[in-house]
Amino acid sequence: MSGNSFGTLFCVTSFGESHGPAYGGVVDGCPPGLELRNEDIQKELDRRKPGSSRHVTQRRESDTIEILSGVFEGRTTGTAIGFLVRNEDQRPKDYAAIAERFRPGHADYTYWHKYGVRDPRGGGRASARETVVRVAAGAIAKKWLRERYGVVIRGYLAELGTIRIAFQSWESVDANPFFAPNREAVKELEAFMDELRESGDSCGARVNVVAQGVPPGWGEPVYGRLDADIAAAMMSINAVKGVEIGAGFAAIGQKGSEHGDEMTPEGFLSNNNGGVLGGISTGQEVTVSLALKPTSSIRLPRRTIDVRGQATTIQTTGRHDPCVGIRATPIAEAMLACVLADHALRHRAQCADVAAPAVVKGRKIN
Amino acid sequence: MSGNSFGTLFCVTSFGESHGPAYGGVVDGCPPGLELRNEDIQKELDRRKPGSSRHVTQRRESDTIEILSGVFEGRTTGTAIGFLVRNEDQRPKDYAAIAERFRPGHADYTYWHKYGVRDPRGGGRASARETVVRVAAGAIAKKWLRERYGVVIRGYLAELGTIRIAFQSWESVDANPFFAPNREAVKELEAFMDELRESGDSCGARVNVVAQGVPPGWGEPVYGRLDADIAAAMMSINAVKGVEIGAGFAAIGQKGSEHGDEMTPEGFLSNNNGGVLGGISTGQEVTVSLALKPTSSIRLPRRTIDVRGQATTIQTTGRHDPCVGIRATPIAEAMLACVLADHALRHRAQCADVAAPAVVKGRKIN
Amino acid sequence: MSGNSFGTLFCVTSFGESHGPAYGGVVDGCPPGLELRNEDIQKELDRRKPGSSRHVTQRRESDTIEILSGVFEGRTTGTAIGFLVRNEDQRPKDYAAIAERFRPGHADYTYWHKYGVRDPRGGGRASARETVVRVAAGAIAKKWLRERYGVVIRGYLAELGTIRIAFQSWESVDANPFFAPNREAVKELEAFMDELRESGDSCGARVNVVAQGVPPGWGEPVYGRLDADIAAAMMSINAVKGVEIGAGFAAIGQKGSEHGDEMTPEGFLSNNNGGVLGGISTGQEVTVSLALKPTSSIRLPRRTIDVRGQATTIQTTGRHDPCVGIRATPIAEAMLACVLADHALRHRAQCADVAAPAVVKGRKIN
Amino acid sequence: MSGNSFGTLFCVTSFGESHGPAYGGVVDGCPPGLELRNEDIQKELDRRKPGSSRHVTQRRESDTIEILSGVFEGRTTGTAIGFLVRNEDQRPKDYAAIAERFRPGHADYTYWHKYGVRDPRGGGRASARETVVRVAAGAIAKKWLRERYGVVIRGYLAELGTIRIAFQSWESVDANPFFAPNREAVKELEAFMDELRESGDSCGARVNVVAQGVPPGWGEPVYGRLDADIAAAMMSINAVKGVEIGAGFAAIGQKGSEHGDEMTPEGFLSNNNGGVLGGISTGQEVTVSLALKPTSSIRLPRRTIDVRGQATTIQTTGRHDPCVGIRATPIAEAMLACVLADHALRHRAQCADVAAPAVVKGRKIN
Repeated sequence: MSGNSFGTLFCVTSFGESHGPAYGGVVDGCPPGLELRNEDIQKELDRRKPGSSRHVTQRRESDTIEILSGVFEGRTTGTAIGFLVRNEDQRPKDYAAIAERFRPGHADYTYWHKYGVRDPRGGGRASARETVVRVAAGAIAKKWLRERYGVVIRGYLAELGTIRIAFQSWESVDANPFFAPNREAVKELEAFMDELRESGDSCGARVNVVAQGVPPGWGEPVYGRLDADIAAAMMSINAVKGVEIGAGFAAIGQKGSEHGDEMTPEGFLSNNNGGVLGGISTGQEVTVSLALKPTSSIRLPRRTIDVRGQATTIQTTGRHDPCVGIRATPIAEAMLACVLADHALRHRAQCADVAAPAVVKGRKIN
Repeated sequence: MSGNSFGTLFCVTSFGESHGPAYGGVVDGCPPGLELRNEDIQKELDRRKPGSSRHVTQRRESDTIEILSGVFEGRTTGTAIGFLVRNEDQRPKDYAAIAERFRPGHADYTYWHKYGVRDPRGGGRASARETVVRVAAGAIAKKWLRERYGVVIRGYLAELGTIRIAFQSWESVDANPFFAPNREAVKELEAFMDELRESGDSCGARVNVVAQGVPPGWGEPVYGRLDADIAAAMMSINAVKGVEIGAGFAAIGQKGSEHGDEMTPEGFLSNNNGGVLGGISTGQEVTVSLALKPTSSIRLPRRTIDVRGQATTIQTTGRHDPCVGIRATPIAEAMLACVLADHALRHRAQCADVAAPAVVKGRKIN
Repeated sequence: MSGNSFGTLFCVTSFGESHGPAYGGVVDGCPPGLELRNEDIQKELDRRKPGSSRHVTQRRESDTIEILSGVFEGRTTGTAIGFLVRNEDQRPKDYAAIAERFRPGHADYTYWHKYGVRDPRGGGRASARETVVRVAAGAIAKKWLRERYGVVIRGYLAELGTIRIAFQSWESVDANPFFAPNREAVKELEAFMDELRESGDSCGARVNVVAQGVPPGWGEPVYGRLDADIAAAMMSINAVKGVEIGAGFAAIGQKGSEHGDEMTPEGFLSNNNGGVLGGISTGQEVTVSLALKPTSSIRLPRRTIDVRGQATTIQTTGRHDPCVGIRATPIAEAMLACVLADHALRHRAQCADVAAPAVVKGRKIN
Repeated sequence: MSGNSFGTLFCVTSFGESHGPAYGGVVDGCPPGLELRNEDIQKELDRRKPGSSRHVTQRRESDTIEILSGVFEGRTTGTAIGFLVRNEDQRPKDYAAIAERFRPGHADYTYWHKYGVRDPRGGGRASARETVVRVAAGAIAKKWLRERYGVVIRGYLAELGTIRIAFQSWESVDANPFFAPNREAVKELEAFMDELRESGDSCGARVNVVAQGVPPGWGEPVYGRLDADIAAAMMSINAVKGVEIGAGFAAIGQKGSEHGDEMTPEGFLSNNNGGVLGGISTGQEVTVSLALKPTSSIRLPRRTIDVRGQATTIQTTGRHDPCVGIRATPIAEAMLACVLADHALRHRAQCADVAAPAVVKGRKIN
């Protein structure tokens, strides 16, 4: 499997750079017969789009999806779905000043070491703009999961810098530019961001994602675990430094008698496992939490070296998100959707003939 | 890629169940010419072995490695290395009492849903005893990484339940049955475990792993990131519920001016990135931290259901680790070693001809 | 995917050398619930076994299968099926004489170049004895395909050296040590082989394999074609130098009006396509033909070089099949079975919800 | 690995349909630093282009390559190379007449069974026009192999229908629209094709491909064999029904004393093995031969069924190659190039540290 592809059966391949002509992707393995129109993808891209508020990068991109294959008369054909999103607002000149210096915390240093090539234009392949491909692919996965299995995938901003945002309602999430699940919190978040932007600095964030309606049985033992694939998918998002499933790091301090989710004929009594046991879904909500680091491109001066190894300093102007976490919610949802679609296919490949187990009082236990 | 294999070029395949005749594995893609003897693997298996102290399961297993192929006259040949570890102390009868009931927090419920099969013998394939295969494979990866690149991989127990263990020295780690990096802490840990065992309950733990000497450039962009593969590898270990690279979840509360690791000609001034930027190694220490949940098999009574969906309770006697985290250190080291060996191979495949970049004052910057 | 594994969902991993302690394999992805006992595999191994007639190698191996995992109470559990076949009649000393010389047409030269290691013991990993693993894995695939889909896979020897063997009946195939589908031909084959053995030389062969009952729709477009995967599987068998599907090379001289298989409501009128169109099964018999080269280990003196590059000659004594094609029929069947099982799973993963197309006069057209 | 991707490290992903807006592909894993300009790819696309003579389809396509990513300032960056070829001369209406009927020998029947979707526009995804992606990807592989290892890959038309074309010189190949390696043969080929076209029928062909300069050691044992991957790559080309390596099917009638290529300090004395022994390259020319079936879309009336399963007849007008083999030479070269590039990378990943073996009289033996 190459580094720019992921998924075993629902397989996504991505290409493109921040200041090249376009981003594009290929979704292979999508079941045939799914209704799919540009707007199904566009509406998810619009959620991730830059320039949607003063709190994110002011780069102007319409992020218009162009489906090039795999759809005929409004339905997927089962063959590879190729798509493009053209870049419209490249400003490679913005990067002239930093072409020979490395931004602390940025991938330009490691890419240069790895490939011996320096593409300073907006981070090149390392730019978070690549996530446009993930969101497009995730839109397809999400739609199929919802229509075929009733799975609903939603996320929200749980922490912004040092502010914890209490979960109030799913309705709040799309009613503000932060994906905050709490209308009352928005004013505080805005004030925080305004001050941050003013200061020239950046901050981290926590995003939570939840999949409801996942049937029990998705995932595989040992290395093909559902949670392992989720962890990889989340950690592959730009700026992510930590991933939790269910209780996550809080499980360290729990006793077994507290952590182990008790069961009754009516269902589980808690969800410390986050919907996954032994790498296989339990039928509960799959709950994932991720930590995003602060953006590395900031206006404050920092010590660094140049390509000749000389000491220097750097300040990044250009257009950047002061908190990449703000736009990360649709990205995390997309990644979870892709992993779940992949495991849905993998599961029914191997276990299509397994009879559903015990039903109690006319319904499945989960 | 099947669920019981992992790695693209340094590829590990695993099989076996807790109460079947044997565990075994295949390491494919190991470079030829590596000196490899049974004892190279055995010494790592002995670190993970059950029964090594009163704080872990009392199952008596010698965990003797038998190499079946891929080694000729004491050196790897480049072909598949097959190996076996026979089970010696199976007690399938221990499980008769719980054969029809599900342990809260245990994979037996999800396996049964997925496969329609109930193998109650010690968790079957879901048993943490499977990690014997990982440790064997990891021993090979570790040895090659150390001899070929000077990479040293070490881990330690950082938290046991609610006790945080301050890092004192690497020397302490192998001097106690907890892999605690602090001799003074051992007494407290022993007291804590004795009380826990007495109570019939279990607890969680945090394990940290560090790889020193990783050259810059290992990893791939987008989905094939080094940190994404590490996250998957760690999350695939039994009981792991969270993974962090570098600052991890602490990055949420950091400012960019604090998190981004400044560089000087003498090297980086901090390591919040955990040795990985943009999915590619920086040349610093790769630092990983994982959360392990408390063991689900405990002696305390818990509410659950049986295979017919009826309400019941369960108490697990058998022989179990009251804290799987105690034996997790060598396992986490092994997984990190396998991922790094895989990426070492992947990197030199694509980038073997890349000239090493700037050298400052006679040495490489990293 | 590593070189010692194949298959995407029905995945086989192999290890072992001709004169090491054992061969073994892992079948991952087999559906759960399949009845599987040692004898199901053993009977296929017995068909491939050496020493079954004077026309094949006289090495004495019982080729006894030992299933180590993945089967519980006589049924597959859905987890990895590990198995071993111990070597019993190694004679590494037989190879002392040729340890430093290369057999013309043998892989020992290329392995030495690739790995820098010379394991002269019976060809090491390059030995055709490795096919014991394929046959074991294929036995599982075959059984599942037959029970789940009614697919029947059979092969036969179609040419032995310059002798073409007319197909008479499937019943004949297992009634002679050549897998010849023609009882009358056996005498001629025996005389030919006796003379060949006497002469110290070896010969090639053609094996045909047929899968009946494959439903239409298995396979994938472009690179994942059913016929592409069959070609790889067959070409991966030791000594195979050519593969044909359907009309194969005869299609060169056909006109389109002759080659294209016409259809009627009663079915296809011919099968030049060999059961595959556009990489996807048609519902007809899948027909495959392979060319096996003559054994490279012969008693006649041949010009060669030694490990120092000096000119020398070589004669191989040891125990060798004068025609590896004679024992190749069960191997080719096994490989076809593994590929079909893999594609059966891949197909139902993606297309489980596709409604079966037109039924004419109460039955499916194919 | 999904069906529209191939290669482990040099990985090609393809999308597009014959009458959709565009074809496109992604080459992932290409080493960085390779000089790559549009014209490097364009010149190969021009060799495959339709409309280049009266003997091939008259569809008018410029087949203009547009590189979208992975190249910066004229050199590959090591990241995914995305590219597009727009369709310019679609005529979906040509297919109205056959929208509900199946062409004998065509994939439209199997796609419909598999996916439950009928995209009649020029064969949709099954169209041989997809090979434009392979040729583009192959151009990159070819260039890298030539510059890095001196590998030269060339092919030619060896048989056209019943005409065998004697090999005269490589220079002849590009001097005629058939890729015939013999100037004298061209007149006969033209006459044959004119008559064939007149008759409304189609014919098959044989294409040979040769890679010179492949070093010994590329390939892997067992399933990852170089020849197995070549076989899959060739069989994945539209219309291919057979593949041979070296002596191919002629090996059946050879004796071991004739087939096994003898070696002297000056090199091999013959090349029956086709440059591959035990799945690993010998250092000789890699020689491959493929059989292409006659085009299924012909003007002659043929019996078939429609989507309701009713008997009917079909005649295909539209624009089709009367012999797809004529344009297959650059495609076969491209596939061989991709496989070799993949194995070059795989080999140096695992065996970069293997010391080159014996040198005789100042040079390597091969």
